[in-house]
Amino acid sequence: MVDNSRTQQRRDSYTVDTLLAVTVRVFNERGYDGTSMEDLSRAAGITKSSIYHHVRGKEELLRLAVGRALDHLFGILDEPAAAGGPPVDRLEHVVRRTTEVLLAELPYVTLLLRVRGNTGTEQWALQRRREFDQQVSALLAEAVAAGELRSDVDPRLATRLLFGMINSLVEWYRDDPDADLADTAARHIVDAVSTLAFSGLRAKRG
Amino acid sequence: MVDNSRTQQRRDSYTVDTLLAVTVRVFNERGYDGTSMEDLSRAAGITKSSIYHHVRGKEELLRLAVGRALDHLFGILDEPAAAGGPPVDRLEHVVRRTTEVLLAELPYVTLLLRVRGNTGTEQWALQRRREFDQQVSALLAEAVAAGELRSDVDPRLATRLLFGMINSLVEWYRDDPDADLADTAARHIVDAVSTLAFSGLRAKRG
Repeated sequence: MVDNSRTQQRRDSYTVDTLLAVTVRVFNERGYDGTSMEDLSRAAGITKSSIYHHVRGKEELLRLAVGRALDHLFGILDEPAAAGGPPVDRLEHVVRRTTEVLLAELPYVTLLLRVRGNTGTEQWALQRRREFDQQVSALLAEAVAAGELRSDVDPRLATRLLFGMINSLVEWYRDDPDADLADTAARHIVDAVSTLAFSGLRAKRG
Repeated sequence: MVDNSRTQQRRDSYTVDTLLAVTVRVFNERGYDGTSMEDLSRAAGITKSSIYHHVRGKEELLRLAVGRALDHLFGILDEPAAAGGPPVDRLEHVVRRTTEVLLAELPYVTLLLRVRGNTGTEQWALQRRREFDQQVSALLAEAVAAGELRSDVDPRLATRLLFGMINSLVEWYRDDPDADLADTAARHIVDAVSTLAFSGLRAKRG
């Protein structure tokens, strides 16, 4: 009875957003396939029916979580600095902001990047990710055509290497001893990604 | 009986190397933890006792597989072009050769990069990976100190971003439609990684 009333209390304090935060952590730890509603209920400290009070089930939680990451990423493409001006400046804005979003929304983007499966939601997420990559790749190709970026690297390959570099942050950022210095460290990383991508590591001569 | 004799025949044709090739494929598909000796026996088409004829068990197979990747990677650091000359040239050699090794030994390096667990072998592999990264990071710091690389990017961060870019190849290289053109595509990718890392994507002015 005591447990029941505590569960009742905690359910009332949950919103879809706070439930999502717990869900995403469990999905990232156990994998989406390896997570049951029972696991989510235990991690959230509320009953399964309390979860069903908020969402229809596990797949809707996944859709909301990766949808949050995708909304942030696609939002970048609509920002004024990404929509107007020389292609190379727009691309640099997208690269910097993508890195910022990844660091700010780390668990959500991590989940998005790990999606692999065959449910409708997973297929949809993979498709949306591809669309985002394609839009960035098209912008990169535009900057090459404008003579702003070197033409000896294939735009599709360059896009993959760029995202490879940026997305690798989900593998180590949280483990970094500097991760506590959240803002400073994030700005430092954003600058480093942008410098490496556009200017390379080699010192300028003379 | 028919099955038995076929199994017998196939066992005789296995060496540790060919058994490893099958093992690594299964480890990469199911994860090391998720793979049983039964799974390996089924995938190889030989009995478990035939596998035990070659190795002591699953953990020895993992050690041999990631050991192969690590031997190739550490071998790079002993190559003449990595051991002598200006630090930046040595680093460029290491970056190019690391990318080549990753593409040539894709399943083995993929397995190495996915190692996470708590067995002695997994801990050893993580430790060796860290040692490799540290040696490359030290070389990068040497090139910064020599004024060959820009000093405004922290060497540890630059190393992580570099490996992030290179290691991301395990996520998409096999899916690439160009992957059939093995040699050409590999050379193209090695050039692109090196160009991006050292010179960046921006076109040179003038």
